[in-house]
Amino acid sequence: MADLAALVTAITARMQAMPERGRVADYIPELAKVSPAHFGMTVITADGAEYSAGDADVAFSIQSVSKLFALVEALSAHGNRVWERVGREPSGSAFNSIIQLEAEQGRPRNPFINAGAIAVTDLIAEGHDPREGIGAILRLIRALAEDDSISVDGSVAYSETATGFRNAALANYMRSFGTISGPVTSTLQVYFHQCAIAMSCRQLARAGRFLMRGGLCPATGRAIVSPERARRINALMLTCGHYDASGEFAFQVGLPAKSGVGGGILAIAPGRASIAVWSPGLSPQGNSLLGTQALEELAQAMGWSVFNPDV
Amino acid sequence: MADLAALVTAITARMQAMPERGRVADYIPELAKVSPAHFGMTVITADGAEYSAGDADVAFSIQSVSKLFALVEALSAHGNRVWERVGREPSGSAFNSIIQLEAEQGRPRNPFINAGAIAVTDLIAEGHDPREGIGAILRLIRALAEDDSISVDGSVAYSETATGFRNAALANYMRSFGTISGPVTSTLQVYFHQCAIAMSCRQLARAGRFLMRGGLCPATGRAIVSPERARRINALMLTCGHYDASGEFAFQVGLPAKSGVGGGILAIAPGRASIAVWSPGLSPQGNSLLGTQALEELAQAMGWSVFNPDV
Amino acid sequence: MADLAALVTAITARMQAMPERGRVADYIPELAKVSPAHFGMTVITADGAEYSAGDADVAFSIQSVSKLFALVEALSAHGNRVWERVGREPSGSAFNSIIQLEAEQGRPRNPFINAGAIAVTDLIAEGHDPREGIGAILRLIRALAEDDSISVDGSVAYSETATGFRNAALANYMRSFGTISGPVTSTLQVYFHQCAIAMSCRQLARAGRFLMRGGLCPATGRAIVSPERARRINALMLTCGHYDASGEFAFQVGLPAKSGVGGGILAIAPGRASIAVWSPGLSPQGNSLLGTQALEELAQAMGWSVFNPDV
Amino acid sequence: MADLAALVTAITARMQAMPERGRVADYIPELAKVSPAHFGMTVITADGAEYSAGDADVAFSIQSVSKLFALVEALSAHGNRVWERVGREPSGSAFNSIIQLEAEQGRPRNPFINAGAIAVTDLIAEGHDPREGIGAILRLIRALAEDDSISVDGSVAYSETATGFRNAALANYMRSFGTISGPVTSTLQVYFHQCAIAMSCRQLARAGRFLMRGGLCPATGRAIVSPERARRINALMLTCGHYDASGEFAFQVGLPAKSGVGGGILAIAPGRASIAVWSPGLSPQGNSLLGTQALEELAQAMGWSVFNPDV
Repeated sequence: MADLAALVTAITARMQAMPERGRVADYIPELAKVSPAHFGMTVITADGAEYSAGDADVAFSIQSVSKLFALVEALSAHGNRVWERVGREPSGSAFNSIIQLEAEQGRPRNPFINAGAIAVTDLIAEGHDPREGIGAILRLIRALAEDDSISVDGSVAYSETATGFRNAALANYMRSFGTISGPVTSTLQVYFHQCAIAMSCRQLARAGRFLMRGGLCPATGRAIVSPERARRINALMLTCGHYDASGEFAFQVGLPAKSGVGGGILAIAPGRASIAVWSPGLSPQGNSLLGTQALEELAQAMGWSVFNPDV
Repeated sequence: MADLAALVTAITARMQAMPERGRVADYIPELAKVSPAHFGMTVITADGAEYSAGDADVAFSIQSVSKLFALVEALSAHGNRVWERVGREPSGSAFNSIIQLEAEQGRPRNPFINAGAIAVTDLIAEGHDPREGIGAILRLIRALAEDDSISVDGSVAYSETATGFRNAALANYMRSFGTISGPVTSTLQVYFHQCAIAMSCRQLARAGRFLMRGGLCPATGRAIVSPERARRINALMLTCGHYDASGEFAFQVGLPAKSGVGGGILAIAPGRASIAVWSPGLSPQGNSLLGTQALEELAQAMGWSVFNPDV
Repeated sequence: MADLAALVTAITARMQAMPERGRVADYIPELAKVSPAHFGMTVITADGAEYSAGDADVAFSIQSVSKLFALVEALSAHGNRVWERVGREPSGSAFNSIIQLEAEQGRPRNPFINAGAIAVTDLIAEGHDPREGIGAILRLIRALAEDDSISVDGSVAYSETATGFRNAALANYMRSFGTISGPVTSTLQVYFHQCAIAMSCRQLARAGRFLMRGGLCPATGRAIVSPERARRINALMLTCGHYDASGEFAFQVGLPAKSGVGGGILAIAPGRASIAVWSPGLSPQGNSLLGTQALEELAQAMGWSVFNPDV
Repeated sequence: MADLAALVTAITARMQAMPERGRVADYIPELAKVSPAHFGMTVITADGAEYSAGDADVAFSIQSVSKLFALVEALSAHGNRVWERVGREPSGSAFNSIIQLEAEQGRPRNPFINAGAIAVTDLIAEGHDPREGIGAILRLIRALAEDDSISVDGSVAYSETATGFRNAALANYMRSFGTISGPVTSTLQVYFHQCAIAMSCRQLARAGRFLMRGGLCPATGRAIVSPERARRINALMLTCGHYDASGEFAFQVGLPAKSGVGGGILAIAPGRASIAVWSPGLSPQGNSLLGTQALEELAQAMGWSVFNPDV
């Protein structure tokens, strides 16, 4: 796999040199401080080899990538009860839209838009102190990444809390329909903290390995989720992982992936690789501009699209 | 592959015996006449072997499955001009919704909802007599299926035309935005006729082989579309092929597929199989109830989900 | 009433001198040809006195003002059957929006948005040749205005027909729900012709007198509509007569009125006056900019708001 | 005016005997406890005479009728700044809809839907302790009604606060757009308390007299609002006072009015009368069923529609 190492290096060099880098998220002050010059990338293949380049060890705010881990945690703890409160369809609207909620009686379309993620987090938070809720998500991520140093960035969490009116609207709205049942403030506290988890590309790619391996944890060999559930989570990432640009990502790249407004993307080539990229500048739809481009080049060069006949 | 033959037979027997068969489409009188008792299935594998069972040789109205072939024809004739008038995102609404069109200035979200398909057909019809437009689509299908007997069911086409007010609304609406440019009546005539093409499961599975084979026509070895385009069409089928139940189909079955209200579904396991199923009874979302279930059982048994790590 | 004459002259002079005149409608070529310099005004009081100024005798395209006369004709011919197909609520959206129709199963919110007016016209056209339908509306207007010279502007009607795709979308959409029942083409032909009726301010103000007089025709003393129906039509004009700027017009002017994109407005001060103004430049909401301003000044000066305690 | 006394008595008797009384609001437990058997009515004419019947002296929760007084208070304190944050158009949707807010960047359509009222209340609450905000509204109402006994029903206010998630969603949503600026919790506290103000028909009709009298307080002769503003508030009540049944109320009754889910309606016949009715059972649109009917009979008998030519 010498060429994969070279490929990762080459793509990283190209991305670092790109003049057009997208726009760094500014909806919370803490995110706006990050330089758009960053680019990092880690690829971990099925045989366990790791290929990193650029700022692969710089921690960034994972933001909505946390929705994936919250979903896994909720499925582990509550099984299919998750699907009683959240659907599995692309939303056809922005990540923070509330229109769909009104049209569909407070039921979010999928767990990867804000409303759906809040509903999932509420299930995790149910009957617990907020600290325990965020603790459960963090424990899962640490175990998956085999790295106990992963933690919440307190100043980002504070910033989210102080400015998260739109998420508070979504939570209260769902509470009025009974989609969520806990105290709104507690649920939001867990949600804002999970968004503020900081990870590097290396940590993120490690945390995603089980989805490349049919649900098995490479560290322990233990099933994090069943093979069927791993497949289904990948399906959800493909159809809903990039908000209202999910169709485009599937069309251009062809891999299950979850993006966050911090500029990180975790992508899975089932049976092949777990990939994390990070570049803070975003496309108009809120996904990492250069991260997407890097994934497209990598998937193209390696033939890793799930739609490839010869995979 | 003796077990695939047995599997197809076993699934077909189970589906034929199912008491709950869904509801036959009644929006045009001709479709309502079809008995819900039908079930047919054909699987063609990469080596060219064909496995058929049940009513695999009974012709049915392919309806929206024709949208796939119209897209291929338009891409062949006009290349990426297609994407100037139609997007690549799941719609988040019903197949015949007009709300999205108003919200997004007359641009349909993808080529597999009615509005998008009409926009694609208008491109094919552009500058031609309607007869030539439908002729072009039919020629493509016949070539792909290696079967010149495939034709339009005249009484279904007449029925579509006489009752297709909602499609006429979509076409006129897009015409007001300039999304389509031809005479609305001509475009609709081509569209109504393409929907009324009648095919059997065997013919449909044959016509889909090129998508299993990276774009190559098995009969001629010639590229119908490039490998990249084949991959992308499969991506579109996965994210948008089942209207507003596409996410669910990806979640449950995990294969690119296009369904029609006639009860047919064409599904592709890239590199593995081209599969056609037919059962006229529909789910509330307008997809074949038993056809979907048969595909789920088949994909599960064969491990054909594109999200499987070991494919 | 010497001061009313002076007031009409003064307002007209002010409006003629205004530098900012709004934007002339250009959605059909024929309307775009009209000079924004025009301003005309006619006020007819309860005692029959007429006060005209400016271009009060220049004919213009009444466009949506015709919706008022079509409603009166339909109510005369079909009574409350009209309300089975169209509501009486402000729409909260643009005059040609189709979103509301989908959300409310093809039933237009009121007879003064395009969809509602087409539904009303379809009732008039029912079982008739299009020529008879437009004839009925024209006969009513001529009788009300006591002027047989009023007629359809053929080139505007032709222009409407050639470019009326959005209205064709609305009509086909309603036909799919059964809101309208006639052949779509015939209904649209009547609709496009009624929009193309040409009238001067003087003719329009005369045609509106019955609404100032509780439904009585001043010429014949005969009831065009009952007092209750006159009151209700006035209520509809107040709540829905200016599309999505109806609330603003009620707030600023306080009179029942119906506007058209040709720049004409017919306003009624019940028991006091029938007023027609015309200035082709429009506000962003599609109502005559200077016409609205003239009505505001007139109503203010005369104390004619229906919300005045001393009226 | 002997017949007005008789009329009020007769209408009240008819309403008390009605078998079909609508459905009492149950969205907060406290409201659901009220018996649908109640009916009360007070009419105060321009000469100061009062006509009461039935439960005219039983206090009920005025709920959304408070939106009128909050608007008057905000206009007095902040003038046209009110219109920078809230529009003057009918909404075309339910009283608690959030869809319009998303479509129109967080700006509520009018001050009489929940979102608009919260935005108005936020202006009143700005820079104040919540207690002062509710105090200001209460002082205004007491002064208008000349009755210092009017107060907030604490258990209703508590109930509103405990269950008001939908209003909390609206407030947070507007806060995310900057439509409101205060601490969401404080603004909501004022809002929930103003909704919980308890008044009888007699008190309510008295509090509405200034709107019948062009803005003058009958007690003090002082202008509460200018004549123009009184006229405009009446216009707003006519176009927006009954949520998404405002058009129907204007059509049937023809009077400016504001309704509340407690079953109360305050209606104004400018220059003629201030009228309060109360019957807890609601129509599907959330307006008092028998209250509306009583107003229709009264307005019809007295010729009080603002659209009457002879008013």
